[in-house]
Amino acid sequence: MKVKPKVVVNGIGTIGKRVAHAIKLQDDIDLVAISSKVPNNVIKTVLEPNGFLYGTDLYASDLEAYNEFKKAGMWVNGTLEDLLRNGAVDVIIDCTPEGIGAQNKKNLYEKYGVKVIFQGGEKADVAETTFNSFVNYEEAFDKTYVRVPSCNTTSLIRTLYTLDQKFGVEYVFVALARRANDPHEYKKGPIDAIEYDLHVPSHHSIDVKTVLKHLNIFSLAVKVPTTKMHVHMLDVTLKRNVSYEEIIDAFEKQTRIIFLEGKEYPATSVIIEKFRDYLRPRNDIWEVIVLKDLVHVENNKVRYIQAVHQEAVVIPENIDAIRAITGIEKDKWKSIEKTNKSLGILK
Amino acid sequence: MKVKPKVVVNGIGTIGKRVAHAIKLQDDIDLVAISSKVPNNVIKTVLEPNGFLYGTDLYASDLEAYNEFKKAGMWVNGTLEDLLRNGAVDVIIDCTPEGIGAQNKKNLYEKYGVKVIFQGGEKADVAETTFNSFVNYEEAFDKTYVRVPSCNTTSLIRTLYTLDQKFGVEYVFVALARRANDPHEYKKGPIDAIEYDLHVPSHHSIDVKTVLKHLNIFSLAVKVPTTKMHVHMLDVTLKRNVSYEEIIDAFEKQTRIIFLEGKEYPATSVIIEKFRDYLRPRNDIWEVIVLKDLVHVENNKVRYIQAVHQEAVVIPENIDAIRAITGIEKDKWKSIEKTNKSLGILK
Amino acid sequence: MKVKPKVVVNGIGTIGKRVAHAIKLQDDIDLVAISSKVPNNVIKTVLEPNGFLYGTDLYASDLEAYNEFKKAGMWVNGTLEDLLRNGAVDVIIDCTPEGIGAQNKKNLYEKYGVKVIFQGGEKADVAETTFNSFVNYEEAFDKTYVRVPSCNTTSLIRTLYTLDQKFGVEYVFVALARRANDPHEYKKGPIDAIEYDLHVPSHHSIDVKTVLKHLNIFSLAVKVPTTKMHVHMLDVTLKRNVSYEEIIDAFEKQTRIIFLEGKEYPATSVIIEKFRDYLRPRNDIWEVIVLKDLVHVENNKVRYIQAVHQEAVVIPENIDAIRAITGIEKDKWKSIEKTNKSLGILK
Amino acid sequence: MKVKPKVVVNGIGTIGKRVAHAIKLQDDIDLVAISSKVPNNVIKTVLEPNGFLYGTDLYASDLEAYNEFKKAGMWVNGTLEDLLRNGAVDVIIDCTPEGIGAQNKKNLYEKYGVKVIFQGGEKADVAETTFNSFVNYEEAFDKTYVRVPSCNTTSLIRTLYTLDQKFGVEYVFVALARRANDPHEYKKGPIDAIEYDLHVPSHHSIDVKTVLKHLNIFSLAVKVPTTKMHVHMLDVTLKRNVSYEEIIDAFEKQTRIIFLEGKEYPATSVIIEKFRDYLRPRNDIWEVIVLKDLVHVENNKVRYIQAVHQEAVVIPENIDAIRAITGIEKDKWKSIEKTNKSLGILK
Repeated sequence: MKVKPKVVVNGIGTIGKRVAHAIKLQDDIDLVAISSKVPNNVIKTVLEPNGFLYGTDLYASDLEAYNEFKKAGMWVNGTLEDLLRNGAVDVIIDCTPEGIGAQNKKNLYEKYGVKVIFQGGEKADVAETTFNSFVNYEEAFDKTYVRVPSCNTTSLIRTLYTLDQKFGVEYVFVALARRANDPHEYKKGPIDAIEYDLHVPSHHSIDVKTVLKHLNIFSLAVKVPTTKMHVHMLDVTLKRNVSYEEIIDAFEKQTRIIFLEGKEYPATSVIIEKFRDYLRPRNDIWEVIVLKDLVHVENNKVRYIQAVHQEAVVIPENIDAIRAITGIEKDKWKSIEKTNKSLGILK
Repeated sequence: MKVKPKVVVNGIGTIGKRVAHAIKLQDDIDLVAISSKVPNNVIKTVLEPNGFLYGTDLYASDLEAYNEFKKAGMWVNGTLEDLLRNGAVDVIIDCTPEGIGAQNKKNLYEKYGVKVIFQGGEKADVAETTFNSFVNYEEAFDKTYVRVPSCNTTSLIRTLYTLDQKFGVEYVFVALARRANDPHEYKKGPIDAIEYDLHVPSHHSIDVKTVLKHLNIFSLAVKVPTTKMHVHMLDVTLKRNVSYEEIIDAFEKQTRIIFLEGKEYPATSVIIEKFRDYLRPRNDIWEVIVLKDLVHVENNKVRYIQAVHQEAVVIPENIDAIRAITGIEKDKWKSIEKTNKSLGILK
Repeated sequence: MKVKPKVVVNGIGTIGKRVAHAIKLQDDIDLVAISSKVPNNVIKTVLEPNGFLYGTDLYASDLEAYNEFKKAGMWVNGTLEDLLRNGAVDVIIDCTPEGIGAQNKKNLYEKYGVKVIFQGGEKADVAETTFNSFVNYEEAFDKTYVRVPSCNTTSLIRTLYTLDQKFGVEYVFVALARRANDPHEYKKGPIDAIEYDLHVPSHHSIDVKTVLKHLNIFSLAVKVPTTKMHVHMLDVTLKRNVSYEEIIDAFEKQTRIIFLEGKEYPATSVIIEKFRDYLRPRNDIWEVIVLKDLVHVENNKVRYIQAVHQEAVVIPENIDAIRAITGIEKDKWKSIEKTNKSLGILK
Repeated sequence: MKVKPKVVVNGIGTIGKRVAHAIKLQDDIDLVAISSKVPNNVIKTVLEPNGFLYGTDLYASDLEAYNEFKKAGMWVNGTLEDLLRNGAVDVIIDCTPEGIGAQNKKNLYEKYGVKVIFQGGEKADVAETTFNSFVNYEEAFDKTYVRVPSCNTTSLIRTLYTLDQKFGVEYVFVALARRANDPHEYKKGPIDAIEYDLHVPSHHSIDVKTVLKHLNIFSLAVKVPTTKMHVHMLDVTLKRNVSYEEIIDAFEKQTRIIFLEGKEYPATSVIIEKFRDYLRPRNDIWEVIVLKDLVHVENNKVRYIQAVHQEAVVIPENIDAIRAITGIEKDKWKSIEKTNKSLGILK
């Protein structure tokens, strides 16, 4: 019997709590602990008897955090460094806020030689490779530091890689209408405005190229007053003429991409409701949604609209990345299938 | 062994789908079928193999609806009238849109003598009694038509009845900041405005009095651009002076009312997230949330703020109403406890 | 001395009231009356002593409307047909809701042979030509029916015509993030969702081609929860390579297009505030705003973001269209200059 | 001829720019300069040839600010301290952000003995008296430091003082649905949530009592996702029974309170549009709006809803405060009338 890799999730926010939950659903990976900085209501809730991480060992990110937890009257096993010192950890999934991951690497992870999976909030150079299950699973085998890019980037890679593999992509322009903040937040706006991304191109197309290195892609982005999902509008030029049926077939055969009819699901709120009705935990949508009747094909041009659940879409790739970085599964499609099945991904 | 009452839910919208789901969790009530008017995405989703009503018999509300379902390629067992004609139904939970329930009563329900539980969208006179589990459970025993009032009304009754029982309520003023629409909707506004209820008093205080008949209460309401929860601000004058501790104790000992700290849950979005993290189906909150640290007591005045999850709060009362109207459980507290346990209500 | 054309504005909503106001600022055009369907608060406000149309003759759209105005206790001179029968009208600016203009044409305008300027809510075939001051001013000289396209279309034409004239446009992809409704509305959503346009391409690119007939353009659109401005994200392929300076220069030299720096005006709300601070009536922005520092040029590709004040941007073209359709000014640039000066357009 | 008091507005944000504008409309007060901290787009816009403060002398708040302005290439006359040293200032209107006013007092104003009018963002003890034109105009005559309370407080004082004077107020409960941020902002939320004020009572009722010292009032507040206006829901207990007509008459006869019909203006967005149509600068509403048909009177209870334009409502009181603190006008009603007329206040 294989030994299960021992994994710690450091940072229990929007992504971290979902990764920890997903790990608990795997039969070949062990969640040995979670680690957190502040005794906030999220950490308290998930560790309550009703919480999905009830019984999981909790470590404090550092000594200061340790004292905070103590002061809040919470049980905490020690600091993350205590745990690492014992050598009982194979992989850390770093889900700390933007930029903290890089500091953790320098101050802590490098010292103990632990393998780390970073998130898209970190710059690409924090890791040796930016990871996507479809594209470069095998690259992660011998790495110590791997990065799973953000929700927007991962979603773009899923559909564009599919098109590129089948038809060859000449050029992509994508305009992103980004959700302004996550549903649980209340401090950030805008309330009645559209805010444009001041980076041109926006970081999304640059980030896609950390994985699809030769893709010719350009992105512009705006932030809009919603919390539910991002929406991407794409204009893709292929290397050859295609038919609508070919495009539909390509997406249909790919995993983690699903179709909904725009006329039945005309807004992101209606999509989210479908997954509430599936009783998905926290209405998580791990799949990219392509609006089937809104796909438009003309000669070598494909236009399509995809909707992305920013809280959940990168979770499957994080799980695959654990298998890749530890080498417990060498076949990417087996890992993908395992992850999909454990979460209940539709296809 | 007792015979389980046979129940049909007519109308599978925001409330209907939740009532149907809750009935499936009861061991003393049978969901024999659901009935619906249109083959929309909700009905399709809940009946999919992934859906929580998979396998439930579907009937069409009428012949026209029957043809719609057929045209949409969906399996449908017949019309609701076909089912009623067979005499196989004890209770209908009518969750059709505002005003349709009254039409159904006249055109269909009266003809077959079936017992019916209506929702708060219908006028009070559609039923013989407006129902609250705490207040008048026993009144429903010998009735044919019972009505469960709306989310705002039910929530107000829960906390005000509690105060009235313990301390006597002299007068209540409540200002409601109402959510504008449910999370899955996208056609209704306002986007950047506050809309005031043109009824003064708003219907909420009038509706509370259909249950708490002697309560002296006045309400004003505004509609605000959010989808998540209603918020009530109350100024209650009691018949005697009380202490903060007495008020807290009264709410603490009552079921279906729970406390959260305002400083930890400073906005409705943070409350909803807690219940997503509890993995509640569709993040449903069946309990009224009272913000504990925001309760203010001064002589005989109590001010408090409560938050109400409009999609879910009336579900427990609907289940209790089935037991009351069929008489299968004569003790209200036993019904309440049974319902609470089946749903996972916190207290 | 030239005789001034006699103009009536029919329909006093968002566009109609602005057109009527703008006509009052022209010294070569006479606003003889306004015409309206309902005695609502807008018509009352603009005709109050404080209102900018105080003293303007009011006609009712039809007999039913006439009775409505009478019932509301308002002074009304008669029906629009009464006025037309007297032959005292040269041009009607039809600003009635979508589709009503076409009905008016059939039922009323054709009968009296009056010239009419329709708005973009009407289908293109309501008129003999769809009008833009830059592109086809002269085409309107001998026409009876002319149409000024919508705010989105007019704005796209302004910048794309400028690029096409100077550099030749090979292909345009534009993604629109549309405001959901106007600031005074409160019934329409979405509140927390992105709604995608179910037409692919959206009508915007089709409508641009009613004026720029040979332009190769494709548009996708989403509707987002804001009331203030539309935002367009464009990816334009030119027929030759250009420099950033050439593009900036082309826009700089064109009228009705102005630059703001994205880093100083990072959201539509900040743009609107600037024009509130200019004390513009109703903060109207007649110019298209191009974010200068967000213009990106690479070989023959130009990407840019423009913001459009949906309530005001078509007003100048409506005024020019009056001069064109009546032939009182044969030189388009003289009309444009006159209109610009009267309104206070920045350049 | 009287000498006009020389006034400087320090801080050109939402309130400061409006106060400066209003001063320019007075024939008995001199705006000698404005003073600001940062060379942002607001200060640039209002000083442009199109701007309403074109030609006004600009001073930097301090030396650091002076250098910032220089670096930004803007003309700046010196620091505010330079100006004060010259003794050329009688009154400063401090409109700097919350808490900065108190620092300015300590570091700068006290040193030069200049009179200062602070805003409601400062704590009450920054000044010798908190000011309302109706209530305590005369108290300001011999003061050096006066404070004009916030928009919510000023509005509550206007209507409650009117009721108290006429009928005697026994007790007030007010629930505030507060706008989340001003229209030009884009960083602050909440987007889809209601945030409750964690202070119970909220500061509003406490602040009302700094002026109406003996009023028995309690307030609760929530923040909602809108930028346009605050809405207050009031439950007022009077010392005697009154009729609806008496209440309407009392408000009707008071200045700076105006009626609109709720059924014609059912949302704050519709109110704002009315004042855009009046061509008010920046759609400013200096009057408190009471919804006439929503006023409800029963024995000694009055319930009403009022809407408050947060950006503009305190401007008249600031102008009156200049006259009071300098003593140039000893009769409050003459000052009120003068201010009203200069701004175009409806009544």
